[in-house]
Amino acid sequence: MPTLVLIRHGQSAWNLENRFTGWWDVDVTEKGVGEARAAGQLMKAKGLDFDQTFTSLQSRAIKTLNLALEEMGRLWLPVEKDWRLNERHYGGLTGLDKAETAAKHGDEQVHIWRRSFDIPPPVLEAGSEYDLSQDRRYAGIAIPQTESLKDTIARVLPYWDGRIAPALRDGQRVLISAHGNSLRALVKHLSNIPDDEITSLEIPTGQPIVYELDADLTATDRYYLSER
Amino acid sequence: MPTLVLIRHGQSAWNLENRFTGWWDVDVTEKGVGEARAAGQLMKAKGLDFDQTFTSLQSRAIKTLNLALEEMGRLWLPVEKDWRLNERHYGGLTGLDKAETAAKHGDEQVHIWRRSFDIPPPVLEAGSEYDLSQDRRYAGIAIPQTESLKDTIARVLPYWDGRIAPALRDGQRVLISAHGNSLRALVKHLSNIPDDEITSLEIPTGQPIVYELDADLTATDRYYLSER
Repeated sequence: MPTLVLIRHGQSAWNLENRFTGWWDVDVTEKGVGEARAAGQLMKAKGLDFDQTFTSLQSRAIKTLNLALEEMGRLWLPVEKDWRLNERHYGGLTGLDKAETAAKHGDEQVHIWRRSFDIPPPVLEAGSEYDLSQDRRYAGIAIPQTESLKDTIARVLPYWDGRIAPALRDGQRVLISAHGNSLRALVKHLSNIPDDEITSLEIPTGQPIVYELDADLTATDRYYLSER
Repeated sequence: MPTLVLIRHGQSAWNLENRFTGWWDVDVTEKGVGEARAAGQLMKAKGLDFDQTFTSLQSRAIKTLNLALEEMGRLWLPVEKDWRLNERHYGGLTGLDKAETAAKHGDEQVHIWRRSFDIPPPVLEAGSEYDLSQDRRYAGIAIPQTESLKDTIARVLPYWDGRIAPALRDGQRVLISAHGNSLRALVKHLSNIPDDEITSLEIPTGQPIVYELDADLTATDRYYLSER
C-alpha cells in the first residue's frame, strides 16, 4: 500500500508572534528546529521510511524536511521543491500581527478572511516590503497578490495530480513537508472534507500525519504518528 | 560566462581521527558545521549566486551544502544528489586510522595506495562492518569494492558530462559540494593536471574553489574564494 506522511514545518518566528506569514520567508525558531528533529526521530523509531520527498520553496518547510531527514539518516533522499506547496498567500495581511490586523480591519473582517473558504484578503500592495515580485526564486511564476484557501487548493491539487500522486502510484513512499494551508488542501482532497469545515481544521507544527491509502489513493485512515 | 564553484565538505569526524572514510557515511564535526556556514557567508558576501547545485549521496557533503545554502538564503535552490560524486572508495582501508593501516600494511604500501594514480587498495571484505551492499541508497548501483583515483575519475566524469556540463552550457550557475577525490577528478579534468600530480593536490575542507570558464567550459582561472 502507498505510504504518505505530511508534516507542517516547525514553529516559525512569526507563528510565535502571531503574524500573517504567507509567502514571506520566515525562519523556524529554536523550538521549531527541535520539533523538526523530534519528528524525524519519531518517524525513524516507528519504522517509517521514504523514497521521495516534496517541499515548498520556503525555508521553514525545507529546513524542517532537512532536519527530519538528517535524524532519519536519510539526507540522501531526493527532495523536490515547488512553489505550489507554498503557504497560502495572505496578501495585504502579510506581516501584520493579530492586534495590528484587528486595528486596521476590525475583528469581524479578520475572522472572515481567516475562516472563509473563498474570500481572499486585500491584495498585497506593489512595492510593499513584502512584495516578492523581484525574488528570483519565483521567476516565471505568476505570484499571487493574495489567496483564499480555495485559491491555494487550486494550485496545490495540480501539483498533487502531476507529481505526488504518480510517485505514490509508482510505489514510492512519500514525505511532504509544507504549510498549514497547503496541507489543508491535501487533507481536504484526501479526506473529502467539506469547504466549511476545512478552514477550521488545525494542522499542528512538526507533527507527522500518516495517511493510509489504498491502491487508487483513496484514504482509508489518517492519524498523528505520535498517537500510534 | 559560466560560474562553477566547488566545495569539499566541512571537517568530518574521521578527517579529525585521520581514518580512511571513503563511502562510509561519517557526519561533519562542529568545526565542519562552522566551515560550511562560513563558506555560505563568504559566497554571499562575495556576491556569488547559483541556479543549480549538485552533491553526493553522503551526509557530510549534503549537510555542508544545506548549511551553506541556508547562510546564502538559497535553501530553495534545486539539489541533485548522485553517487557518482561520492568520495573515492577506500576498500579494505575503510575505517582504519593511520597507525592501524601502517601496522597492518606497512608505511610504504600505504603511501603507494594514497599517492598512486591507478593502484587501488585491497577490496573491502564482504560482510565487513563497512560493507554497504545492503544500503538501499545504493540499490541498483554496482558499489565498488575499492577504487584507485583513476577509478573514481572514471565514474565522476560521465556525471560531469551528462549532468553538470549541460547545466553550465545552459547558462546555469553551478555549486558542487563533494569530496576530496571526486573534486580532484573535476580539478584534474578542468585544469588538465597530469596523473602524477593530481594525487598530491590537496583540497581543503569548506573552502569554495571558483572556476572561471569560457563558453566551451575551458578553465581560464581557478582560485580560492577566500583569497580574492
